Amino acid sequence: MTPDRYYLGVDGGGTKCRARLRAADGTLLGEGLGGPANIRLGLDRAWSSILEATHAALAQAGLDPSIFPRLHVGLGLAGIVTPTDSIRTRAAGPAFACLAAETDAHAACLGAFSGRDGAILIAGTGSAGYALIGGRGHAVGGWGFEVSDEGSGASIGREAIRLALRAHDNLAPETGLTRQIRDRLGGTPAAVVGWVNDAGPADYGRLAPDVLAHAAKGDAVACSIISGAAKELETYIRHLHALGAPNLCLMGGLSAPLTPWLSPWARSLLVEPEGDALEGALLMARQAAPRDITQRPIAKSALP
Amino acid sequence: MTPDRYYLGVDGGGTKCRARLRAADGTLLGEGLGGPANIRLGLDRAWSSILEATHAALAQAGLDPSIFPRLHVGLGLAGIVTPTDSIRTRAAGPAFACLAAETDAHAACLGAFSGRDGAILIAGTGSAGYALIGGRGHAVGGWGFEVSDEGSGASIGREAIRLALRAHDNLAPETGLTRQIRDRLGGTPAAVVGWVNDAGPADYGRLAPDVLAHAAKGDAVACSIISGAAKELETYIRHLHALGAPNLCLMGGLSAPLTPWLSPWARSLLVEPEGDALEGALLMARQAAPRDITQRPIAKSALP
Repeated sequence: MTPDRYYLGVDGGGTKCRARLRAADGTLLGEGLGGPANIRLGLDRAWSSILEATHAALAQAGLDPSIFPRLHVGLGLAGIVTPTDSIRTRAAGPAFACLAAETDAHAACLGAFSGRDGAILIAGTGSAGYALIGGRGHAVGGWGFEVSDEGSGASIGREAIRLALRAHDNLAPETGLTRQIRDRLGGTPAAVVGWVNDAGPADYGRLAPDVLAHAAKGDAVACSIISGAAKELETYIRHLHALGAPNLCLMGGLSAPLTPWLSPWARSLLVEPEGDALEGALLMARQAAPRDITQRPIAKSALP
Repeated sequence: MTPDRYYLGVDGGGTKCRARLRAADGTLLGEGLGGPANIRLGLDRAWSSILEATHAALAQAGLDPSIFPRLHVGLGLAGIVTPTDSIRTRAAGPAFACLAAETDAHAACLGAFSGRDGAILIAGTGSAGYALIGGRGHAVGGWGFEVSDEGSGASIGREAIRLALRAHDNLAPETGLTRQIRDRLGGTPAAVVGWVNDAGPADYGRLAPDVLAHAAKGDAVACSIISGAAKELETYIRHLHALGAPNLCLMGGLSAPLTPWLSPWARSLLVEPEGDALEGALLMARQAAPRDITQRPIAKSALP
């Protein structure tokens, strides 16, 4: 009898990294957590976080790194943009039975559609889309809120500030939202500018719930900002669908509050994800592994 | 016979500060240059620059600081936003016969219309408007390119990058401009994002001439960016006119190239400035001075 094969999926972002270990028959053996693993933080740092999460998952299964030669690994990591990034990442890791590395969006899309064609659109602090068509990935947007990330929380917050300052200057209508935004950021335009000087995307994004709350009450400025953001997301949805994605998962903290603002057509394309990014990374590991007679599709009941 | 009065006008910005000295009859006596005098850099630094420029202007006239008790001073300084800023600025300076301090926009507007009602709109790296109506100033916009400064060079450059990335993602048309912008910033979206990470308003603003050049050749994306910027400036012009400014001076590095993109109505309001910000600061000094029998309006021939 051949020794067991193991499959490990890793989902690594800028703040943390998660690993999930499954047996060849799909049985969940363990999960683990590690530090940040965006490869822009450096490959040493990323691999240290990946191995931290891996060791924790192995420990939960009563296993240790001696199984590495039987471990098939799939990594979905933030910061992987080009094929070269993938090659460098794999070269910097230890020896496994096999190792695949793609962007975290690829893993999330694979997991959401269990490997079938589909697309995801992330609407959180930032925004980014990814479609998987016939095994090929297509990334769109997500270049950062200064010059991209339309429809994101950061974009919503920044637009709210812009209109709050225009309202102060009598260039745009003053509403409950524009007053509240100025009040929250110090009351005067000079205080608002001081706040902006130190603000990053996450700071702008933290204003999005205020805008959503005012929009829900019919505030005209808030409604125009939120419907504008929904229109931007819809541009991405139309594009991902035109690429060939029959369905789409809207993800991220703003997916639920923004969904009702989408057109009925866009909403009709939305589906819930079947699995998470870790399941996508596990699929990558299975796809990369040499064919195995014990391999079979993961039963949906085996998903978390 | 009373000892001579002298009038000094100072125009201070974030990079340099200029001073102009006139006799009571308007005769030009001297000019001088100093370092940055935006009061946000600190009042010590601002005053050190102001005095550097002042001493240089006095030296050109064969005078020295012993005339300070007969010197009437007007300061137009970047960074003065509130009356408190003006009071703090004056309190930190040496003893003059009298001392007025206002924002540099106030001095520029006073100089441009020789003290009559009017407005200025600055379109350079940033954008900002200022109207002077019956002696009262009204500032509008100019809160920085992250959340304001519509129609500015920085806004034009940032929009060009945004559309260059959208063109790469097949979300917007690809033109000569979008290709050139990506090529200039490293060729790949990843390189563009790297450039954006280190970019400030001046860096974005340096892309504006490329956009203008492509717009002049009919590039569709460039034309949409530039006509959008002109529309934003026109919103300011309409607002400043509605406040009561009969005419308007468009100033800054983008005023000449953007003027042809304004509507005939907006262009019909534009006039050339009669004097510069130093003349405005000199007017502030005269207005602040106790009435003087030798005082008379500055002859236009005395202007530079």
